[in-house]
Amino acid sequence: MKISPLAPASVPALPPVAGIRLATAVCNIRYKDRPDVLLIEMAEGTQVAGVFTESLVTAAPVDWCREILAQGQGRALVVNAGNANAFTGQGGIESVARVVKATAATLKCNPEQIFVASTGVIGEPLPDAKITDALPALQSALSETKWDDAARAIMTTDTFMKVVTKTAHIGDTQVTINGIAKGSGMIAPNMATLLAFVFTDARIPAPVLQHLLSDANESSFNSITVDGDTSTNDTLLAFATGQAIHAEVKSLQDAHLQAFKKAFQDILTDLAIQVVKDGEGAQKFITIEVHGAENNQAAHTIALTVANSPLVKTAIAGEDANWGRIVGAVGRAGEHVDKDKIHVSIGSVVVAKDGARVEGYDEAPVAAHMKGQNIDILLNLGIGKGRAKVYTCDLTHGYIDINGSYRS
Amino acid sequence: MKISPLAPASVPALPPVAGIRLATAVCNIRYKDRPDVLLIEMAEGTQVAGVFTESLVTAAPVDWCREILAQGQGRALVVNAGNANAFTGQGGIESVARVVKATAATLKCNPEQIFVASTGVIGEPLPDAKITDALPALQSALSETKWDDAARAIMTTDTFMKVVTKTAHIGDTQVTINGIAKGSGMIAPNMATLLAFVFTDARIPAPVLQHLLSDANESSFNSITVDGDTSTNDTLLAFATGQAIHAEVKSLQDAHLQAFKKAFQDILTDLAIQVVKDGEGAQKFITIEVHGAENNQAAHTIALTVANSPLVKTAIAGEDANWGRIVGAVGRAGEHVDKDKIHVSIGSVVVAKDGARVEGYDEAPVAAHMKGQNIDILLNLGIGKGRAKVYTCDLTHGYIDINGSYRS
Repeated sequence: MKISPLAPASVPALPPVAGIRLATAVCNIRYKDRPDVLLIEMAEGTQVAGVFTESLVTAAPVDWCREILAQGQGRALVVNAGNANAFTGQGGIESVARVVKATAATLKCNPEQIFVASTGVIGEPLPDAKITDALPALQSALSETKWDDAARAIMTTDTFMKVVTKTAHIGDTQVTINGIAKGSGMIAPNMATLLAFVFTDARIPAPVLQHLLSDANESSFNSITVDGDTSTNDTLLAFATGQAIHAEVKSLQDAHLQAFKKAFQDILTDLAIQVVKDGEGAQKFITIEVHGAENNQAAHTIALTVANSPLVKTAIAGEDANWGRIVGAVGRAGEHVDKDKIHVSIGSVVVAKDGARVEGYDEAPVAAHMKGQNIDILLNLGIGKGRAKVYTCDLTHGYIDINGSYRS
Repeated sequence: MKISPLAPASVPALPPVAGIRLATAVCNIRYKDRPDVLLIEMAEGTQVAGVFTESLVTAAPVDWCREILAQGQGRALVVNAGNANAFTGQGGIESVARVVKATAATLKCNPEQIFVASTGVIGEPLPDAKITDALPALQSALSETKWDDAARAIMTTDTFMKVVTKTAHIGDTQVTINGIAKGSGMIAPNMATLLAFVFTDARIPAPVLQHLLSDANESSFNSITVDGDTSTNDTLLAFATGQAIHAEVKSLQDAHLQAFKKAFQDILTDLAIQVVKDGEGAQKFITIEVHGAENNQAAHTIALTVANSPLVKTAIAGEDANWGRIVGAVGRAGEHVDKDKIHVSIGSVVVAKDGARVEGYDEAPVAAHMKGQNIDILLNLGIGKGRAKVYTCDLTHGYIDINGSYRS
């Protein structure tokens, strides 16, 4: 698999996060001879927050994580690539139960604190014995440094590993936040899903962590799309080990939490953008901003409708400044618009305003912008104050290659 | 442009419809040296019904047709290909007004009875003088027989002309229904839109015709999708010239109208299926049926979500029996489903039931079905009596070729 042309030029080295140890194993669940199972162990007392797919056809591991999230603590995370354990009925539930039970026994902790995630083919039984058999070896291999191995073990159709790290101060104490993610289509071919995991040594109570994660998710993972196909397995989990010694955090509004909050948001946005930049077949990274909508939600819906339009995405793939398709998508988004007030800019060139192409429109600078790797579209609807920004990629032959011939 | 592999093997010869005369002209609006403007003249007293795009960014000709539809009569229809006259502001409104005024003067009739439709690039001013200049020649050329010419003149990215004809009895009188359509993407590249026009010599009052058209539209044009991109210009018009002598029609429930009603529905379904079979890049024709939904509307939404899923469409293009993507799409449709009650059949093979793959699943017969040109998917949700059937095509390299490189 060729690496995405949008892949980051350099990859940060992830430092240890106090209270986190990681190990990977080659279990041959679907892929052969590459690490495909990840075990992460967390210190006692680690606080957990989570956000999951809005699909109603949820995978068994998603159902399990949702169920145990309320107790707020985590001691381990087990992830496999190659099989989604989705649409697997009672058998899938039992697979999760066996993995959880065996992991709890291995690590000597409460099963209700074992989180699991799966990504891969939908509808095939998970060969869970391959995971449970590997647990002793995984336990012996646990180390504070294996962040890159972890990010690679969860990849499916991803062409590059997705990692990010930042530090922030809470009061006088420096804390670390590491994040890893995988994802390339929302559900990609047989094998993909959005999984993202964030780890910090900060001491953040689970309810505050949950609030922080839910907020940050809106403008990051909920603001990206590759193909509009929400996965059965989308899972975003945050773990705060509480190993750092700092002023107590009581609420998201605490003044001393603001730098951390900003860093945490940046971590999620960075990972989300990496996922788009590894979108299946992506050649161009597209930012779509909507201003002047009736409200923020309307702006978000319109921006996503443009971002998911096959005609907009293929035009961009063809470097065609075909802005008519953009307004076409705006019109079908189902949100209030007044066609005679719409302004469209591409790059920083105003293409259309007040419902028609600008007088003396010169396509040359817009055509030049379309040849670049980063495409910026700004729509001003002129009817309110709602705003949104979403990220997507173009729709290319590569997408068809990856998704139209994977298993055949 | 290569003809779609799904094109009908033979094309019916359309007979005259009493009260209808047609002519086409080469106006070089965008295409060069091919007929691109169509004039259809209708007998005095012709009753009209219409259904238009649900987009809020409607083209100027759509706004005009909506405005005049209430008076219920039509004397002419003017259609151009190559320019959609959409997102053209006040200039676009004035273009329509000039075409309407000149056509009314040429045919000596009420401007409020002149219907117009455009299809093509969005956002470019319509060179309407090219149309009005051609009106005298169009008038001289009017003939009862030029149905094929008419169907060809409105084509954009279409690879074959779309025509259909049927007869039906109203009482003892045989009446004729002819239909023509164009469309290849919902909005295709620069140049496409769904336009469909149906003509009959039956004597059907406009309110009854409207009811008939709106009903028939639901299970035909509202049940197809190529790429989910609803056009700014979608226009479906029905004209009943009333030249046939038959028992009076007072309501859609009249017993003597039932055969006509059936034929009219068949005409629309036939045209709608032709549009899908000419879907940009289409290699396979896909029928998706949903049974057992909460209600018909929910079934329709779920069927369309599956039909629009890029992952489902690319899997089918790749002849991959990847049914997990189908249930993935069901889960994100936003309608009530119980994942443990979903049954999936492909071809006539039950693949999954009660939320998991069937015991001893054998992929061979499903894989064989995927190699055919017609793909049939049946989903039973097991929670109610709602049903729907939609038609779509696969998503192939051809779609990317057509839409990613049209203007460049």
